[in-house]
Amino acid sequence: MAKTKAEIEAMIKELQTLDTSNMYNNDFFHTWKESDDEIQAVFKVAEILRGLRENNISAKVFDSGLGISIFRDNSTRTRFSFASACNLLGLEVQDLDEKVSQIAHGETVRETANMISFMADVIGIRDDMYIGKGYTYMKTVSESVQEGYRDGVLEQRPTLVNLQCDIDHPTQVMADMLHIINYFGGVENLKGKKVAMTWAYSPSYGKPLSVPQGVIGLFTRFGMDVVLAHPEGYNVMEDVEKIAEENAKKRGGSYKKVNSMEEAFKDADIVYPKSWAPFAVMEERTKLVEEGKFDELKALEKRCLENNAKYKNWTCTEELMKTTKDGKALYLHCLPADITGVSCKEGEVDASVFDRYLVPLYKEASYKPYIIAAMIFLAKFKTPGSKLTELLEAGTKRIK
Amino acid sequence: MAKTKAEIEAMIKELQTLDTSNMYNNDFFHTWKESDDEIQAVFKVAEILRGLRENNISAKVFDSGLGISIFRDNSTRTRFSFASACNLLGLEVQDLDEKVSQIAHGETVRETANMISFMADVIGIRDDMYIGKGYTYMKTVSESVQEGYRDGVLEQRPTLVNLQCDIDHPTQVMADMLHIINYFGGVENLKGKKVAMTWAYSPSYGKPLSVPQGVIGLFTRFGMDVVLAHPEGYNVMEDVEKIAEENAKKRGGSYKKVNSMEEAFKDADIVYPKSWAPFAVMEERTKLVEEGKFDELKALEKRCLENNAKYKNWTCTEELMKTTKDGKALYLHCLPADITGVSCKEGEVDASVFDRYLVPLYKEASYKPYIIAAMIFLAKFKTPGSKLTELLEAGTKRIK
Amino acid sequence: MAKTKAEIEAMIKELQTLDTSNMYNNDFFHTWKESDDEIQAVFKVAEILRGLRENNISAKVFDSGLGISIFRDNSTRTRFSFASACNLLGLEVQDLDEKVSQIAHGETVRETANMISFMADVIGIRDDMYIGKGYTYMKTVSESVQEGYRDGVLEQRPTLVNLQCDIDHPTQVMADMLHIINYFGGVENLKGKKVAMTWAYSPSYGKPLSVPQGVIGLFTRFGMDVVLAHPEGYNVMEDVEKIAEENAKKRGGSYKKVNSMEEAFKDADIVYPKSWAPFAVMEERTKLVEEGKFDELKALEKRCLENNAKYKNWTCTEELMKTTKDGKALYLHCLPADITGVSCKEGEVDASVFDRYLVPLYKEASYKPYIIAAMIFLAKFKTPGSKLTELLEAGTKRIK
Repeated sequence: MAKTKAEIEAMIKELQTLDTSNMYNNDFFHTWKESDDEIQAVFKVAEILRGLRENNISAKVFDSGLGISIFRDNSTRTRFSFASACNLLGLEVQDLDEKVSQIAHGETVRETANMISFMADVIGIRDDMYIGKGYTYMKTVSESVQEGYRDGVLEQRPTLVNLQCDIDHPTQVMADMLHIINYFGGVENLKGKKVAMTWAYSPSYGKPLSVPQGVIGLFTRFGMDVVLAHPEGYNVMEDVEKIAEENAKKRGGSYKKVNSMEEAFKDADIVYPKSWAPFAVMEERTKLVEEGKFDELKALEKRCLENNAKYKNWTCTEELMKTTKDGKALYLHCLPADITGVSCKEGEVDASVFDRYLVPLYKEASYKPYIIAAMIFLAKFKTPGSKLTELLEAGTKRIK
Repeated sequence: MAKTKAEIEAMIKELQTLDTSNMYNNDFFHTWKESDDEIQAVFKVAEILRGLRENNISAKVFDSGLGISIFRDNSTRTRFSFASACNLLGLEVQDLDEKVSQIAHGETVRETANMISFMADVIGIRDDMYIGKGYTYMKTVSESVQEGYRDGVLEQRPTLVNLQCDIDHPTQVMADMLHIINYFGGVENLKGKKVAMTWAYSPSYGKPLSVPQGVIGLFTRFGMDVVLAHPEGYNVMEDVEKIAEENAKKRGGSYKKVNSMEEAFKDADIVYPKSWAPFAVMEERTKLVEEGKFDELKALEKRCLENNAKYKNWTCTEELMKTTKDGKALYLHCLPADITGVSCKEGEVDASVFDRYLVPLYKEASYKPYIIAAMIFLAKFKTPGSKLTELLEAGTKRIK
Repeated sequence: MAKTKAEIEAMIKELQTLDTSNMYNNDFFHTWKESDDEIQAVFKVAEILRGLRENNISAKVFDSGLGISIFRDNSTRTRFSFASACNLLGLEVQDLDEKVSQIAHGETVRETANMISFMADVIGIRDDMYIGKGYTYMKTVSESVQEGYRDGVLEQRPTLVNLQCDIDHPTQVMADMLHIINYFGGVENLKGKKVAMTWAYSPSYGKPLSVPQGVIGLFTRFGMDVVLAHPEGYNVMEDVEKIAEENAKKRGGSYKKVNSMEEAFKDADIVYPKSWAPFAVMEERTKLVEEGKFDELKALEKRCLENNAKYKNWTCTEELMKTTKDGKALYLHCLPADITGVSCKEGEVDASVFDRYLVPLYKEASYKPYIIAAMIFLAKFKTPGSKLTELLEAGTKRIK
């Protein structure tokens, strides 16, 4: 199953045909800000790094250096994915523990960003809880350390990797997509495939919008027929929908919104049933948190949960799965899922469906550390292909 | 004091006569599951790794890779021992913070185990609080990552090291034993030595059984006369007692249970006075936690502490020490001890006894990082002797 | 802006003229315990290490090993500075999490110090909250690990770096001083410069005394005219004042205490307005914490805040800045500052003053990781100059 060195060499050659010059010394915020070449390059480098590891070849390009992680929302998975990516490349992770559920304020961000970055080569941030805040915070951090670098405060410019903001979740949806590419045997086989990105019921509230937004923003670039399905009122950000529509037009696929899970699942090649909160609720929530109105916040949560409960039938059942293409669409989830009868009474998916897709789901997740590592790699090396060739030829063993 | 290179070479030669093939790509759960060769190999590799370090020779066999620690009970000492072992070999530690005092549930364990293991070469787990749970949890994690490896989710099979479960505490008792071996000048001098593993009073409640169980399970393999002493009702697990009895029969020592600290201490060469909770209490506690009966849990604690208080005279005094072999048995403890008049009003041991054994106690503890490193090493290298020879001959300086 | 290799070589030559033999295998507690050569050596090594990094040359002198951090007071900045310094040299950081706001007790310190140090090359401690306690704690840790090393418990003697105690804050004030040296174009230009180390109002209470004490203890060594200004009652430790006086006598500068911010600022070349608690209050506080008198502690806090509020006019305004030398004294702060109208209603400094000095302030902070790394380096290498020459000549790339 491991890639051969010849296969790795071939991938490097393909990589070298791609223009990645604009990624050098840059950040990775949203997939739609990256060119097709850049997106392809992330996939290629991720696969090459995985190939090196399969062959016990070290990819340690940093002799020392720090990878700073800032998690403004708890996350075991993303935390370990980031730590794994950093370790693979030779960076040591230092976590900045900030109080969870707090909105960052500009005045102190600039200072903190510089104070933690003296030896930082990369900063990974997850800040997905508050609409209009997460991405803004990341931009502020990025600008602050750029200024720090320019002014001689920092010896290097730390690259920022978006580990999930309020708008996009690029490392997740690119891992999802690399999984799809491998599952369907190549990017050339994706044209015309139907993807159902659908809302699903969960007993919890306030799940971020960044996954559905990330999916429609990325998947529409591959000529697929992307359907977003959700109950009335569970809208995602309009700006991202526009991006999805434009992508579909340009790439020859389609983007459609429906209010029926059944319609979305019908003949789908890929299904991604997952809960999220309505954009309007998330906006109100952010406002209430900012204003410190905690009683109203509780009322909002109650109201939102009651509303969710109207849509318990939005769940990925065996019956629904049967209506998909040949009854066996590829089931995706960013994990952890709310599994009916397992992690909750009623949730996003039937236990039997989830169980059937366990191995593919884990594989889907397994791409994330390599995607993150690829983003870092492409920001640090002007000619990534030749650097990877060096690593391959040196053949330094990871385990001696 | 440092071993010479010739001495290290000699130890490597001895190591090469031992069959460690079954340790390769395997886990370390309980000492009694390991053959005599395997136990000896752990001691040898631990001493060799220590010897390399004494000579400022690097033992960094991993160029990159993660060591995951999962502490389901707080522990500064074991945490640092594991971190030290990983660092010695070149692995970076990532802690999985789980809520303390929570019983792990199977459904999510498999998923989490895979999600944190993408770059994991070893997973160290401490889960000692709940009878019937700790080891079960470890097994589930081990099986989960084996499946993940088999299914292509993980690029490598992480080795599991038991950093203390409800049944055994192998890294502790093997560190204890290596200390004993060095103290008595070799494993060949242990035959016929009397060991008193005795309960001792502590003002706290619910201390795990894994140390006394680990001691009787391991020490009986060395032809020693092992005596387990505790007040009536403070039984340990029957299964482990059976192992101790069988060991004693096979190895020509003895295993005996008494209800008197005095009897155990009489003429003992080694004493290990330490508090633990009765097995029956630990079983009830687990049940109550599982059922969420926190009021009854408090009542159990109260009852248990009252019962403990009946046995305040079970304490390692100077008087008792005088009754041991030549009045100077080797005093052992896994630390931290409850020292009378120091860390508590009345505890496991007199301050003057404890103080007299301070340096030996610290030395005892100092073997643990090397024991853990040896367990990892033996799981990772098919021919550990030749790998150690490579390290010795390369002579890469740890501090340049 | 990056130093050239020739410049680095020149600095190494200068370093080699300094006697650092007493720093080898030693700790760094207070600047006034170090000779002039030793202080100069820290600056030199810090600059050389920074120079290596600017040239992408690895300074990784440790192949493996741990740097232990013990923060008995929360600190993002110092935590990251220590982590950066360790990483630069090749040490992995392990944090010992102790309960914040607890006074360490001798009995357990010795044990813990050894248990966490089996692979420790350096221990960095911040313990600044309790007068008479922080430095004492550090001394105990240092003595404990020295004994551990002597007794064969530890394979190496971990060096202790004072990351702030109740008496001095050497890594901070040496970073401050290196910033000053660079700002004024060399240590030879400092003679006769006037420094105003002045108290400033802050709405918080209980800020440590170690910065003003560290400043008067260090800056008086450079022939500067150091003025300490504070409202009546906000005294610092007498012992440190004596050191400042003696320094001034020996080095041809002066040390003076005034009760007026205006007087201190007048014609000053450097101003360092910063809040701290009166020594007497800190002493009382320590006593109350020790005695567990938490009600009286609250009363003390209230009383102290009320007293502080009398001195709200002790703040670094634009008007005051105009009275400094040419109206443009160098403004220093250890960060974070209490900025009027930004981080608090009324604080230590006007927002416009603070903003104007943002880049210099960040630069000031940026020296700290290198200062810490230099302290470690000088404790680990008997001939630091030749070791640095080795690194320079090897020219191993930090980023490949």
